[in-house]
Amino acid sequence: MYLKNVWYVACTPDEIDGKPLGRKICGESIVFYRSGDGTVAALEDFCPHRGAPLSLGFVRDGTLVCGYHGLEMGCEGKTTGMPGQRVGGFPQIRRYPAVERYGFIWVWPGDAAQAEPNEIHRLPWAEDPAWAHGGGLYHIKCDYRLMIDNLMDLTHETYVHANSIGQKEIDDAPPKTVNKGDQVVTSRFMENITAPPFWKMALRGNGLADDVPVDRWQICTFTPPSHVMIEVGVAHAGHGGYIAPADRKASSIVVDFITPETETSIWYFWGMARNFRPEDEELTAKIQEGQGKIFAEDLEMLERQQRNLDAWPDRNLLKLNIDAGGVLSRKVIDRLLAAERTSSVGQPIIPIARASEAS
Amino acid sequence: MYLKNVWYVACTPDEIDGKPLGRKICGESIVFYRSGDGTVAALEDFCPHRGAPLSLGFVRDGTLVCGYHGLEMGCEGKTTGMPGQRVGGFPQIRRYPAVERYGFIWVWPGDAAQAEPNEIHRLPWAEDPAWAHGGGLYHIKCDYRLMIDNLMDLTHETYVHANSIGQKEIDDAPPKTVNKGDQVVTSRFMENITAPPFWKMALRGNGLADDVPVDRWQICTFTPPSHVMIEVGVAHAGHGGYIAPADRKASSIVVDFITPETETSIWYFWGMARNFRPEDEELTAKIQEGQGKIFAEDLEMLERQQRNLDAWPDRNLLKLNIDAGGVLSRKVIDRLLAAERTSSVGQPIIPIARASEAS
Amino acid sequence: MYLKNVWYVACTPDEIDGKPLGRKICGESIVFYRSGDGTVAALEDFCPHRGAPLSLGFVRDGTLVCGYHGLEMGCEGKTTGMPGQRVGGFPQIRRYPAVERYGFIWVWPGDAAQAEPNEIHRLPWAEDPAWAHGGGLYHIKCDYRLMIDNLMDLTHETYVHANSIGQKEIDDAPPKTVNKGDQVVTSRFMENITAPPFWKMALRGNGLADDVPVDRWQICTFTPPSHVMIEVGVAHAGHGGYIAPADRKASSIVVDFITPETETSIWYFWGMARNFRPEDEELTAKIQEGQGKIFAEDLEMLERQQRNLDAWPDRNLLKLNIDAGGVLSRKVIDRLLAAERTSSVGQPIIPIARASEAS
Repeated sequence: MYLKNVWYVACTPDEIDGKPLGRKICGESIVFYRSGDGTVAALEDFCPHRGAPLSLGFVRDGTLVCGYHGLEMGCEGKTTGMPGQRVGGFPQIRRYPAVERYGFIWVWPGDAAQAEPNEIHRLPWAEDPAWAHGGGLYHIKCDYRLMIDNLMDLTHETYVHANSIGQKEIDDAPPKTVNKGDQVVTSRFMENITAPPFWKMALRGNGLADDVPVDRWQICTFTPPSHVMIEVGVAHAGHGGYIAPADRKASSIVVDFITPETETSIWYFWGMARNFRPEDEELTAKIQEGQGKIFAEDLEMLERQQRNLDAWPDRNLLKLNIDAGGVLSRKVIDRLLAAERTSSVGQPIIPIARASEAS
Repeated sequence: MYLKNVWYVACTPDEIDGKPLGRKICGESIVFYRSGDGTVAALEDFCPHRGAPLSLGFVRDGTLVCGYHGLEMGCEGKTTGMPGQRVGGFPQIRRYPAVERYGFIWVWPGDAAQAEPNEIHRLPWAEDPAWAHGGGLYHIKCDYRLMIDNLMDLTHETYVHANSIGQKEIDDAPPKTVNKGDQVVTSRFMENITAPPFWKMALRGNGLADDVPVDRWQICTFTPPSHVMIEVGVAHAGHGGYIAPADRKASSIVVDFITPETETSIWYFWGMARNFRPEDEELTAKIQEGQGKIFAEDLEMLERQQRNLDAWPDRNLLKLNIDAGGVLSRKVIDRLLAAERTSSVGQPIIPIARASEAS
Repeated sequence: MYLKNVWYVACTPDEIDGKPLGRKICGESIVFYRSGDGTVAALEDFCPHRGAPLSLGFVRDGTLVCGYHGLEMGCEGKTTGMPGQRVGGFPQIRRYPAVERYGFIWVWPGDAAQAEPNEIHRLPWAEDPAWAHGGGLYHIKCDYRLMIDNLMDLTHETYVHANSIGQKEIDDAPPKTVNKGDQVVTSRFMENITAPPFWKMALRGNGLADDVPVDRWQICTFTPPSHVMIEVGVAHAGHGGYIAPADRKASSIVVDFITPETETSIWYFWGMARNFRPEDEELTAKIQEGQGKIFAEDLEMLERQQRNLDAWPDRNLLKLNIDAGGVLSRKVIDRLLAAERTSSVGQPIIPIARASEAS
């Protein structure tokens, strides 16, 4: 159960660099590529001729060409040519609204008529040269909501990430969770503690001492359909913590886009945006490597949790105060899902390929 | 949906050299081996004692011996011995008609009473010392008819095999497709073109210049159940093309036997028979290597096409003029399938193993 | 169809050395670990908080800690703590009776109220310093009864283990099979034969000539639910065989515990106990290596047999005199299964986790 009339991150620009990319998103098999004017096109990954995946083809002068028999597909899903054929009567394939913005390719897997690029999640830092961003992509076999739960309850850091960002003081600082419209915010503040290894590294990276007490914060914001941005950081203790001046802290935003592939698998785009030493590419790479290792620790836990839930489908789970972030996020999703079901009555029919006879 | 009362290629002689081979064909699990008189036997791959696969056993003096408890199976499916046992009352297992001919082992997976070795597809070149043959076997997860489509529409060469046998002129030369009884023939002729890399190699192999214009032909013949023989070649331009004298051309027959394993998987026996320099084993190996690489390029396309068709089961495909070969071949298959269903009424019951009590 | 109100071997002590072990037994996902007082605990592998497998966690001072959010689970299935939480109302998870005895961890996957440690299969040699034991564990995808059949009919040694313990004389010596209460015993005696390679090695290991005629015996005893102990050995011919004095023979007990994982997969604990040179660890290792190789030869046969039986579900198998051991063992199992079904009426309900609301 995932929302479809929303924008998801589909891929990063490098993934469609010079070649098409096939990726299933919300159960839809989609081919992404860069069309003639440089904009991104997203189409059903199904050649209307013989059903080959168009993503096995290639892009020639901005036109997607099927790799089986050379059918040329236009970026609106209408065949524009094929050697030796008149293609006017060829059935159309489905087009998906797609937009490149903030260093990501976004796709709208639902009703194209409702797609509104202005609704794409805003990432002001992505357009600000004072910030740098590094990240990666993991494929994980779990319901996307298990990842939302994971990110909206960071007490798991103490256990899953014990050697990098976890520390006992997280357990001792109860989070506060609130709704802000369709967003959910859960925050935790820790004062006068020792920074864990990852944050010592970030302090050093920012030219700050790493052996003094710090104040630490975690502010997780869920935005539908499944984006979780986490403001995290440490400041030398006693300078205001979250609001300490820039030269007293190392802070960043953990960037998480969770895109459902199927009901029980996801494309997990993780990353970190920081506003210190943005030009230092070595530091970007170092943070990316560290974060990649940390987030890989969640994979087995989430996949095994999914398998346990599959095996015990009737068992209810506990909803503790630490789970409030995930619980409230799911309530937002449920409300929007109900609204989407209501509004989908009267949705236009998707064109389906029809047969023509052999000549 | 495949024909069962027909002959298929099951394996090559080297695959049963000194040991039994287990292979599923048309849904039937069969063990092949060479019996005492050197002829090939094919039996249900199921020991009537405890159900072990007989193909895990061995052949001793031409008798198949089960590798679990030593049951000796006769080539008619009747147990001939077992240490310490009287085997007279043991249930029979099914025998499949099998014939070795033309360098292949052929099997009849349907009603044995109807099997007629004279109906095995004729390969005159296989018995002619002026010809040489090399080939291989691929296992591909697709409906056997997708491979027939593939071979009966060679426009795909331009795209799938762009670096070896593909060339733009194929697209420009529309094929002509006709029925000849149960056979379907689709042919294409190109004149005064440049030979693509594979054919340049073949010209050189035949001692001919490879840098002059050539005439090229492709004549694909489908024969039920799923054999496709393709006469292919190039001749120095202006000498008659297909009917040019032998010292002006390099020609050969692409040999394709497509044997269904299940509804969505095949054993694909590919090869090439040529009538120039038949004694040159190095050339045979070189052609085999080149062809093996070319045909491997089809694997991913066919398997991904199958998965797309599985995902969109209700979608109809286009049937263009270039698809006529496959379309007409499927019509022949459909007609024969209907005939097979009608004739199967009153077919003899296959003997099934029965239990005897413990003594 | 397996018995559940019985003791099975679950694992060996080294498998829970310092960390929890997750293992599915009779369809139950169970976590095993060593609790504070050194005894073994076995619990449902499902954290009542969010469904994570507890086996991905760790043991701290004898307490099982969930690796996701730090829930502390008591060895009775009652949560004993969780950072920042009152756990009194947390739902209980299922506890399985578990006992460490004879160098194995035993588990009772059925109704805990009926578990009686006195019913654990007795292994007198395991507590006798005159004996040594070595063994291993294989995971095999077959019904546990196929392995019982295998071990209760050693004629397969001649074929499956032709190069180690197999010899033609096994086929020539018909076994004798009898019931002894719920046990089944099948025995075979061979006189004045040549020892096969494995037994030559054992004779040498016991300081005896390996090039003289021997008497050989195999006495297989099935005990429910699925234990098979096999007394095996060779004695220099003419000294009494099975009852020959210790300095004239090499004998041992093949130890087989077959624990169902699912209906069609097993944990197979194999080993050998011997009462000669028990202090010789090099000999133990040599025997273990040899036996491990021999028993690995059964794996493919059993898995392929299982697949054949799955493919031909309606086919009956033969029950010959050599199969009597397996046939009678299955009759015992069937009788006990019927009794278990009858007695399970009125069994206590297993506690199931219930939801509490988010706070």
